Amino acid sequence: MSNKNIKDEVKVFSLSSNKPLAELIAKNLGLELGQCSIQTFSDGEIQVNVEETVRGYDTYIIQSTNDPSDQHLMEILILLDAFKRASAKTINVVMPYFGYARQDRKTKAREPITAKLIADIIEKAGANRVMAMDLHATQVQGFFDIPVDHLNGMAIMAEYFLAKKLEDVVVVAPDHGSVKRARNFADSINAPIAILDRRGPRDATTDSQLSVVGEIAGKTCILLDDIVDTGRRVSTGAHALMKSGAKEVYAACTHAVLSGIATTYLKDSPLKEMVVTDTIEIPTHKQIDKLTVLSTADLFSEAITRVHLEEPVSPLFNY
Amino acid sequence: MSNKNIKDEVKVFSLSSNKPLAELIAKNLGLELGQCSIQTFSDGEIQVNVEETVRGYDTYIIQSTNDPSDQHLMEILILLDAFKRASAKTINVVMPYFGYARQDRKTKAREPITAKLIADIIEKAGANRVMAMDLHATQVQGFFDIPVDHLNGMAIMAEYFLAKKLEDVVVVAPDHGSVKRARNFADSINAPIAILDRRGPRDATTDSQLSVVGEIAGKTCILLDDIVDTGRRVSTGAHALMKSGAKEVYAACTHAVLSGIATTYLKDSPLKEMVVTDTIEIPTHKQIDKLTVLSTADLFSEAITRVHLEEPVSPLFNY
Amino acid sequence: MSNKNIKDEVKVFSLSSNKPLAELIAKNLGLELGQCSIQTFSDGEIQVNVEETVRGYDTYIIQSTNDPSDQHLMEILILLDAFKRASAKTINVVMPYFGYARQDRKTKAREPITAKLIADIIEKAGANRVMAMDLHATQVQGFFDIPVDHLNGMAIMAEYFLAKKLEDVVVVAPDHGSVKRARNFADSINAPIAILDRRGPRDATTDSQLSVVGEIAGKTCILLDDIVDTGRRVSTGAHALMKSGAKEVYAACTHAVLSGIATTYLKDSPLKEMVVTDTIEIPTHKQIDKLTVLSTADLFSEAITRVHLEEPVSPLFNY
Amino acid sequence: MSNKNIKDEVKVFSLSSNKPLAELIAKNLGLELGQCSIQTFSDGEIQVNVEETVRGYDTYIIQSTNDPSDQHLMEILILLDAFKRASAKTINVVMPYFGYARQDRKTKAREPITAKLIADIIEKAGANRVMAMDLHATQVQGFFDIPVDHLNGMAIMAEYFLAKKLEDVVVVAPDHGSVKRARNFADSINAPIAILDRRGPRDATTDSQLSVVGEIAGKTCILLDDIVDTGRRVSTGAHALMKSGAKEVYAACTHAVLSGIATTYLKDSPLKEMVVTDTIEIPTHKQIDKLTVLSTADLFSEAITRVHLEEPVSPLFNY
Amino acid sequence: MSNKNIKDEVKVFSLSSNKPLAELIAKNLGLELGQCSIQTFSDGEIQVNVEETVRGYDTYIIQSTNDPSDQHLMEILILLDAFKRASAKTINVVMPYFGYARQDRKTKAREPITAKLIADIIEKAGANRVMAMDLHATQVQGFFDIPVDHLNGMAIMAEYFLAKKLEDVVVVAPDHGSVKRARNFADSINAPIAILDRRGPRDATTDSQLSVVGEIAGKTCILLDDIVDTGRRVSTGAHALMKSGAKEVYAACTHAVLSGIATTYLKDSPLKEMVVTDTIEIPTHKQIDKLTVLSTADLFSEAITRVHLEEPVSPLFNY
Amino acid sequence: MSNKNIKDEVKVFSLSSNKPLAELIAKNLGLELGQCSIQTFSDGEIQVNVEETVRGYDTYIIQSTNDPSDQHLMEILILLDAFKRASAKTINVVMPYFGYARQDRKTKAREPITAKLIADIIEKAGANRVMAMDLHATQVQGFFDIPVDHLNGMAIMAEYFLAKKLEDVVVVAPDHGSVKRARNFADSINAPIAILDRRGPRDATTDSQLSVVGEIAGKTCILLDDIVDTGRRVSTGAHALMKSGAKEVYAACTHAVLSGIATTYLKDSPLKEMVVTDTIEIPTHKQIDKLTVLSTADLFSEAITRVHLEEPVSPLFNY
Repeated sequence: MSNKNIKDEVKVFSLSSNKPLAELIAKNLGLELGQCSIQTFSDGEIQVNVEETVRGYDTYIIQSTNDPSDQHLMEILILLDAFKRASAKTINVVMPYFGYARQDRKTKAREPITAKLIADIIEKAGANRVMAMDLHATQVQGFFDIPVDHLNGMAIMAEYFLAKKLEDVVVVAPDHGSVKRARNFADSINAPIAILDRRGPRDATTDSQLSVVGEIAGKTCILLDDIVDTGRRVSTGAHALMKSGAKEVYAACTHAVLSGIATTYLKDSPLKEMVVTDTIEIPTHKQIDKLTVLSTADLFSEAITRVHLEEPVSPLFNY
Repeated sequence: MSNKNIKDEVKVFSLSSNKPLAELIAKNLGLELGQCSIQTFSDGEIQVNVEETVRGYDTYIIQSTNDPSDQHLMEILILLDAFKRASAKTINVVMPYFGYARQDRKTKAREPITAKLIADIIEKAGANRVMAMDLHATQVQGFFDIPVDHLNGMAIMAEYFLAKKLEDVVVVAPDHGSVKRARNFADSINAPIAILDRRGPRDATTDSQLSVVGEIAGKTCILLDDIVDTGRRVSTGAHALMKSGAKEVYAACTHAVLSGIATTYLKDSPLKEMVVTDTIEIPTHKQIDKLTVLSTADLFSEAITRVHLEEPVSPLFNY
Repeated sequence: MSNKNIKDEVKVFSLSSNKPLAELIAKNLGLELGQCSIQTFSDGEIQVNVEETVRGYDTYIIQSTNDPSDQHLMEILILLDAFKRASAKTINVVMPYFGYARQDRKTKAREPITAKLIADIIEKAGANRVMAMDLHATQVQGFFDIPVDHLNGMAIMAEYFLAKKLEDVVVVAPDHGSVKRARNFADSINAPIAILDRRGPRDATTDSQLSVVGEIAGKTCILLDDIVDTGRRVSTGAHALMKSGAKEVYAACTHAVLSGIATTYLKDSPLKEMVVTDTIEIPTHKQIDKLTVLSTADLFSEAITRVHLEEPVSPLFNY
Repeated sequence: MSNKNIKDEVKVFSLSSNKPLAELIAKNLGLELGQCSIQTFSDGEIQVNVEETVRGYDTYIIQSTNDPSDQHLMEILILLDAFKRASAKTINVVMPYFGYARQDRKTKAREPITAKLIADIIEKAGANRVMAMDLHATQVQGFFDIPVDHLNGMAIMAEYFLAKKLEDVVVVAPDHGSVKRARNFADSINAPIAILDRRGPRDATTDSQLSVVGEIAGKTCILLDDIVDTGRRVSTGAHALMKSGAKEVYAACTHAVLSGIATTYLKDSPLKEMVVTDTIEIPTHKQIDKLTVLSTADLFSEAITRVHLEEPVSPLFNY
Repeated sequence: MSNKNIKDEVKVFSLSSNKPLAELIAKNLGLELGQCSIQTFSDGEIQVNVEETVRGYDTYIIQSTNDPSDQHLMEILILLDAFKRASAKTINVVMPYFGYARQDRKTKAREPITAKLIADIIEKAGANRVMAMDLHATQVQGFFDIPVDHLNGMAIMAEYFLAKKLEDVVVVAPDHGSVKRARNFADSINAPIAILDRRGPRDATTDSQLSVVGEIAGKTCILLDDIVDTGRRVSTGAHALMKSGAKEVYAACTHAVLSGIATTYLKDSPLKEMVVTDTIEIPTHKQIDKLTVLSTADLFSEAITRVHLEEPVSPLFNY
Repeated sequence: MSNKNIKDEVKVFSLSSNKPLAELIAKNLGLELGQCSIQTFSDGEIQVNVEETVRGYDTYIIQSTNDPSDQHLMEILILLDAFKRASAKTINVVMPYFGYARQDRKTKAREPITAKLIADIIEKAGANRVMAMDLHATQVQGFFDIPVDHLNGMAIMAEYFLAKKLEDVVVVAPDHGSVKRARNFADSINAPIAILDRRGPRDATTDSQLSVVGEIAGKTCILLDDIVDTGRRVSTGAHALMKSGAKEVYAACTHAVLSGIATTYLKDSPLKEMVVTDTIEIPTHKQIDKLTVLSTADLFSEAITRVHLEEPVSPLFNY
């Protein structure tokens, strides 16, 4: 039905967190990235310069809020303010990785709900829509009053594993809160599930604290998580699975935070392969052999196209 | 530190959903329930009459939003509007059962996030604080910008089961999304966990779809859920557990929705006992023998006292 | 001036209150009603499913908030939330009958202003425009900050009575607050007015409390009101008018609430004919002989057309 | 219950419209008016200077928005902004006469609802509460989201007429929209009502357009209105009543706008006495013999006292 | 890129402050001014009547808020409300002169920030964009959350002075807060700057209080200010400059407020020429010989064109 | 008048930017700093833990937003969210140095107004009041809708210089935008002013671009600025002044940003002494001999006391 077109109506801008992904997305859309530079002064303040008009355009800002997360977030807010004052028609924030998403509820007294705070300030600064992928909890969509397109990055990894034609696979949830995600993934590759039953503190690693619920002996395990951060959870998990008789262990995590000495953990772990996506740019020195990086660019460009042409985005969604 | 007192500064009002609980709470606080009547006209519209002054008082409105949920919600909104216009000092909404909490995220295209909508309109109507218990997802707290006291009703049931001194207990999560809750409960009664692995549609019941992940043979199972609604989930769960060799099956659910022919399902199920609380008023004809109802009144009155005296509420919290 | 068209840009959805009217409106516009279903679970909660894309469309939601008014209102709010999150271009709420409109001011201490509350929450949930008919008080338009198209349903009834060519007619206001409406109607059928002077409680019926101000002896009276609810006001009014010497009494009321035993009152009254519109769907058992139902579908479809084509709507207005 | 006191916690400020009334109110409260001056520069801009601290005080700003209404309104807004930034505890706006209240609905296409606009900007500028008297339409309360105390000035006039012990009185509504007000007033002095039936334009005066509905021959009429503006309505009304056989005609109007040559109209009319209040300051040259001015100061000071001591204000209300 | 056009999509309306400028702007755009009348009733209230449809149009309201500033502002607010309720597509407020802009910060305790207040209420009333010229402080742009186009009227005057080919020119800042503006102007006509160093009260005039910082002896001075209000500042400045040895003194001020006896001051001053613009309509009796009025119409119509065609407006900006 | 006390009602918290200043302020108030820790995870995200109750307390958060400014700002926002959800009575943000304040207006096309953005998100996150010192532009106060206490740090430096009893002093503004500040400072130490007239780019340093307007030959100059950032402006200024015949040059700047190689610039400059305050914590390696640091702690603690006891804060203000 639409007589809209992308070339004349859309501009895509990249902030500083993930230019390679932004370039792929723009290229898929047949566009050049919009001219905009981020300057950090010696006093640490950021200045954003937009070097082409956005008046009347549907703009897309591509930025993950990985480390340094506060600066990456501030870049988004500042560009939103600039675009709002420069009369952009709409401002869409594409956040391949939405940092702080794990702080989505109070887990003890006097704790903030930082994910909600961030949703609030992004809206306040002028966003009209947010596009995200594999949020830590799907309820985070509800922190926004504007439309959120929640894309399904897991599907990219499921496709990859299906192509591998592994046999006798079981999908393993690394903790109690991620069983549902494991079940969904397991359904799409037609496998049973198991759970790592951690007791006590979040990163418990001693044997007495970490047991396996479900059948994994002699099987190929895929440890599934939304984020691989320090690598410790995935590494201790892999150890526990091998010890409990697993044949081999893969891991699949959408967001490759890989903080601290994550790559060391991964290298030293019994993991056969660690599959992630490019929602966070991975510096060369972290691109170890075990790491397979799948691109999300096609999914994002397809989503932007559908949004702009006002076609249903639901086939790409992660609910 | 506080020189505040409850008698002269607090008024507690009950709307129509759960007067017995409201009366217990008020009695605990040494108060009479505030005079306010709800009239339903023959055209179905509600009129709320507040028959005593609230000017300058800290007011607490006690109302669950169980069936008829829309009317119960509208009563809250109307009373909020009345109190706001009548210059109440603060208006605190105590929702022992927060209906629509299960609609807390998009699960398919073009779906509303009704729990967020309800949070929004409660805030818009003038609430200063919300007090709730055992929300379906803890992220729902973040749907509000006002303080939410999220009380831990599970603790009441855990205490009950501890007092029973059952042996060889395993706590069973009825689906993939509630494993974390099961783990927390299991920790407080010092037990292992297992999971009912449902595939396909939400209320799947055929054998091929419902299997048990974890060890339950010969054990006493406690099926743990936040809500018992139609009773079907708990009932098919109990059947599956018995079939898999459980010794006996209890169920513990905070909110006794008990809709449709729930009591029939429960009666006909192999459940030994169904433990619930009084967050929802249970009509006499639903009070079957198997049903044990624990009161949450002490917890709520304690929370109101602490809030009013500005003492930490965290010991009563469910994060 | 407009190069807009309705077929490709507009979708009309009906909620559960008045599907026949919604279908007439859609048909007038050359459209099918949008696919959307409302499901009520056994626990009383509503779930709305939108089965076709609304992304980029100007959407119209047709729903009266008659009994069960709270559920009908909640359906609107939930659909607004769904459409907002699904990126509808605009969301227009067509409320042929706006329930709770009579609670439009404080009439005693600590009373809510429910009509304002409802306006607020409809806006909060995401409405861009409201279309209503013959509001109880025209000031209710001002409760909204979004545009309100206030259509004149009285004109449909005036046309009907003009076509009847009754002689020696007097238009009677049923109470002190509706004299202005009577005057306007009287002007359009070129007749004088009279007033039923009720003293004391709202539904006073004894002779000493109900007298007629103005000349009606030997005349044909048309009792004019915005709403016929219990039927008692119109029935006692008709009695009083006959007793005061009226030749015959008609009644004309836009909104046929007809709650309780309204039809019995109407049947037993000396009313010759009761003229209403289809803003509220009238169940078959209430369609008594005396009742004449005029359709408002043409007026609503004309208004939607003008709004969409950005032509002036004022000729259809009721100020 | 309250241990609050007025002397140490309240400050009353007068803006430029009605200092005599403000002084009476302050005196009743045992206070001096707060020091604040309004300066109008030669370029027409206003500057407000607050010469004493308001930090932590409950402040009351007394200002009617009669002619020059825009300047009087701007004074309120500017003082609200100043008090908000100076950390006043609460800011209460006392508007004995609320100008623009007659523009409370759309009466034709593309018309503003100015009364709503004014409510919105008063709230936006920082008001916590509004106190008003005899609003043109009671629905205007609902234009605010903050508490509105709507005082009953009619009661002062009713008391005055009761004390006069007039005989055979009928209360006359000057148009169709004010019949309800007439009925309420009539109830409080125990009298019947009549209506001036005006057809055509608002200030219709020819005989063919102005007739009386109801019995007034030989009776003492009290023409009752909320506002006496140009005096033409009340004057033509008095003529029409005398011509229809009234014995004598009084008029009672809360707000003495008296614009243009109102006093000439009043003098030349057959009115015996024109009773008004001091909500608007009446300049000496308009204080003609026929005019009786009743003070509203006691009512306002009583209301402020009750609000501050958190006692019910309802006995003073006009709903 | 745009297929937009002005004739069919834009309507320009003038309120009462500066019809001649509005007519020039409309003419430049090839449009007639929209039909809308402002009526002031005898009670001082304004009524705005919009006599043609604005539904779906991009509307521009042209109004300066010079004396009577409160009424001029209220006209804007009322028209905004009317247009919002009449479904204008966008509402752009063009304020050639933005009154109250000098009250842009607290300069002593308990002072309002009136410029922010006005920004807030203009936004609240429904404006989508503001267009202004030579604001007293550029920070005022930040008081708005909507886009502000801040046009550079100084450029018009610079061009005028360049065309004069004056020799040995120095640009003089009349006080400490306007040195930056002087520097910018001086850059564009390639001249040095000097400063009038005023000590003590704002309009200090005695010799001991007013000295010149910088070299002006024997030079042609251009006193540059944003506003000429009472004329006293410019007049005492000119005297001081002549006394300090200036050859001759010109003055250039964008906004010709000319309040009080400004023209007398100007006539009596040693000023050779006073150059202003037509942002404020100058009544005939104030058009003294010394006064040169340059039109801003071309700049405004160019800005409107660029905004509508979504071309960059920055070349016309004043930052 | 107040019976308030600080010990039982106030809690002061320090975030990570300037603990020494926070400790001094707390000590002045007779308080310990509240227990709260900031944890930075290896993925760069911050977690704030509040280890004591704030329910019912007036809380003060002390944090400058110097480098790393985004993290320091995010700490404020997160703590605001935590305190809001933990039912603090009021939350006051004390920002001795308000970073990003220089981005307070658009200076070219498509530029953000970051200072406004930051004001907006601080308000949105829940602040009730802000306390700041020597803002870059006083208009920034107006970016907030909540009360802002703008303290006068210049007074501390003026006192210091008065005590020095320097002779023949002239206060020099380093650019055109800061002449007003120089005039105020000069008034308080009874001195004349001069201006550094910079043409072209912001940090122009060549001789042709930098001249002195005003008399400084043989005098002691005090270069006055709000911020010393890279040190280049102050250093080139000092050179220019010496070259123009100054006897000696001091510099006084409230906020010691000292980014990059500022200390090298300062050391190498002809500056005799650089006077700053402790609004930003100065690391040991930057505390060079020339640098004199004056404490603002007394001023802040005095302001907090006055705010809490509801006494006028104006004597401490900087307007």
